[in-house]
Amino acid sequence: MQREFARLWAELAPIGRCDAGGGYSRFAWNAEDLQLRAWFLAQARARDLTVDTDRNGNQWAWWGTPAPGAVVTGSHLDSVPGGGAFDGPLGVVSAFLAVDDLRSRGVHPTRPLAVLNCVDEEGARFGTACLGSRLLTGVLDPEHARALTDHDGITLAEAMAAAGADPTTLGRDEPALAWIGTFIELHVEQGRALVDLGAPIGVASAIWPHGRWKCSFHGQGNHAGTTALADRRDPMLPFASTVLAARDVAEQAGAVATFGRVRIDPGGTNVIASAVHAWLDSRAPDEDTVAQVVKEITALAEQAGQRHGVEVHVGAESFSPIVTFQEELRDELSVLLDGAPVLPTGAGHDAGVLAACVPSAMLFVRNPTGISHHPAEHAELADCIAGVHALSRVLEHLVSR
Amino acid sequence: MQREFARLWAELAPIGRCDAGGGYSRFAWNAEDLQLRAWFLAQARARDLTVDTDRNGNQWAWWGTPAPGAVVTGSHLDSVPGGGAFDGPLGVVSAFLAVDDLRSRGVHPTRPLAVLNCVDEEGARFGTACLGSRLLTGVLDPEHARALTDHDGITLAEAMAAAGADPTTLGRDEPALAWIGTFIELHVEQGRALVDLGAPIGVASAIWPHGRWKCSFHGQGNHAGTTALADRRDPMLPFASTVLAARDVAEQAGAVATFGRVRIDPGGTNVIASAVHAWLDSRAPDEDTVAQVVKEITALAEQAGQRHGVEVHVGAESFSPIVTFQEELRDELSVLLDGAPVLPTGAGHDAGVLAACVPSAMLFVRNPTGISHHPAEHAELADCIAGVHALSRVLEHLVSR
Repeated sequence: MQREFARLWAELAPIGRCDAGGGYSRFAWNAEDLQLRAWFLAQARARDLTVDTDRNGNQWAWWGTPAPGAVVTGSHLDSVPGGGAFDGPLGVVSAFLAVDDLRSRGVHPTRPLAVLNCVDEEGARFGTACLGSRLLTGVLDPEHARALTDHDGITLAEAMAAAGADPTTLGRDEPALAWIGTFIELHVEQGRALVDLGAPIGVASAIWPHGRWKCSFHGQGNHAGTTALADRRDPMLPFASTVLAARDVAEQAGAVATFGRVRIDPGGTNVIASAVHAWLDSRAPDEDTVAQVVKEITALAEQAGQRHGVEVHVGAESFSPIVTFQEELRDELSVLLDGAPVLPTGAGHDAGVLAACVPSAMLFVRNPTGISHHPAEHAELADCIAGVHALSRVLEHLVSR
Repeated sequence: MQREFARLWAELAPIGRCDAGGGYSRFAWNAEDLQLRAWFLAQARARDLTVDTDRNGNQWAWWGTPAPGAVVTGSHLDSVPGGGAFDGPLGVVSAFLAVDDLRSRGVHPTRPLAVLNCVDEEGARFGTACLGSRLLTGVLDPEHARALTDHDGITLAEAMAAAGADPTTLGRDEPALAWIGTFIELHVEQGRALVDLGAPIGVASAIWPHGRWKCSFHGQGNHAGTTALADRRDPMLPFASTVLAARDVAEQAGAVATFGRVRIDPGGTNVIASAVHAWLDSRAPDEDTVAQVVKEITALAEQAGQRHGVEVHVGAESFSPIVTFQEELRDELSVLLDGAPVLPTGAGHDAGVLAACVPSAMLFVRNPTGISHHPAEHAELADCIAGVHALSRVLEHLVSR
């Protein structure tokens, strides 16, 4: 099993690897993503699994004939810009190896089983996360999705067509949804809870509600050398105050708040900015807390703006309500896995999107540093193998029901 | 004169105009710059002035035979990104119109007179300001200059060659320098001193010492949703503290300090930044104050970094010492212009670079808002005409000595 895991991992390792820092850039429908999709196809064929691509480009590798009530497991193969190797691929690789493990143990499923590769989970190219699962479940309007553009102005429809996929079929896929009796996603943990608990595997309880808010600070562009401080309306100052305020507000509320993306107009060294646009990512255990945190940050941003003659506007770009995974299934899996700890996560996942329509659960694999969305993202080989065995036990239990 | 000014202004108006916001993007050796150089040539020809291009690409339009002791006047035609219409072109247009005015008044110069268009004053494309005058005077190494690159990785040498100019001749130009008996640059004021003084025209006393420092904050990239606040090493926080600290330090010192350009790695909404690189522009009336301001900002940045587990590095990218224009010439011009006020500026200029080698002076034209490096940069037509008349009087005085 270790050798086979290492072999699959080595096949994926070079695909989409960035030169700088060793991270990955695997974005929906780009050349690297097409290589990953071809790899998925090859893995399925090597196992005599039948590949079906649904209306939205998600890939399904079937053990048995597709039929309602199937057990489906998988994750995604795309990455954030400069992301790590584990977020996504670990769930797909573990799914194939769990199939191998079931077969080697002579398990004969009484239900069909599928390995799923969800397209564009990270939303790195077109800005909307979980695109494949959101389209599949119908929570994203296909017309809106087709018109989403990447940094070069290429629409999703154009990108799909260029990759030989059909963008006209996008939308809620009733037959595909009906197939899923239960969905299980295995994923590297993106925090240090399992490290602190000393457990290699955990079961997800919930996904924190989370959203993105665009905060725009409009001041007055001017010469950095000749404009007296008193005459300035520099948007960088209220932006800086807002960064610090966001940290304090989140800390007091037990939430998280992050500014990781900023655009400055015009962005010259010797030019006072005319505008700063900054994206706030905030998450908390419950929706009221997120709303309260964003409200307080907005108020503090506006106060800082007033002090500097800078107009401030904060607008929501996206919001994902809380996801609570089915408690019965979750507890069942925890017991099955010898009392694996049950823990929430602050990260969005396809399993969270699917949970609104079908019984879904997630397994987490310990991450020694808790770092993710970064080249340092990691899981020890022994924990990855423990993950495959845990997934295999869960699948055996579900396909035998 | 008003009609002629309006005519020349209208010829320049469409060249390099950006769609968004109405500013200009005229960068050294790009298509717009070549149009501006052709316009300069046409203006010279229309006045029977002989055009000479020096070793560094600066354009000279001669009234009379080039010879040592000439009176030279002009400015530049390039802009910062999204810059205004006046910074640079006002000095070149006024120079041509001053020649017209001298001729219409029957002035016969006893010395040659030249109108000068200095190449790449703003440094918007290759990052180094006053490239043409720095090369001309030999303060910039030509080997270093040729290798400067723009955002697309094109070197200055390649850009010049593509524009049909010869990059191999770059460097200190002794004959050209020897020509300049006196250099006069007319420029739109980039602050509100003349507004407050109620004067249309001023004479420069000095250019504040100024420099650029790159401040790098190296933290730990991570997932914005799953990383506990206590586990973060988010470089955005000490950067924000530094922005606010810089304002306070500058205010107390009577200096200015600005962050207008920032680069965030990797720059994703749901990713804690791994690094923030921010450029500090600082200027003050004297060099000790600039040094002290940067020292204090650096210390506060490092303290903020330590609080957040973020490494901070501050390194100088460029520094321009104080320029004091020749006092005798300056006072002579102020008296000649009926007691025009004498004032310092925080902006760098080709006249400041040339002042190290040849007697130089500057005239400023009132700017109603003080705004510059921005589409709102402006001078009233009456003040522009007053500028041409002032320049004409100064040139008459100098060519008659």
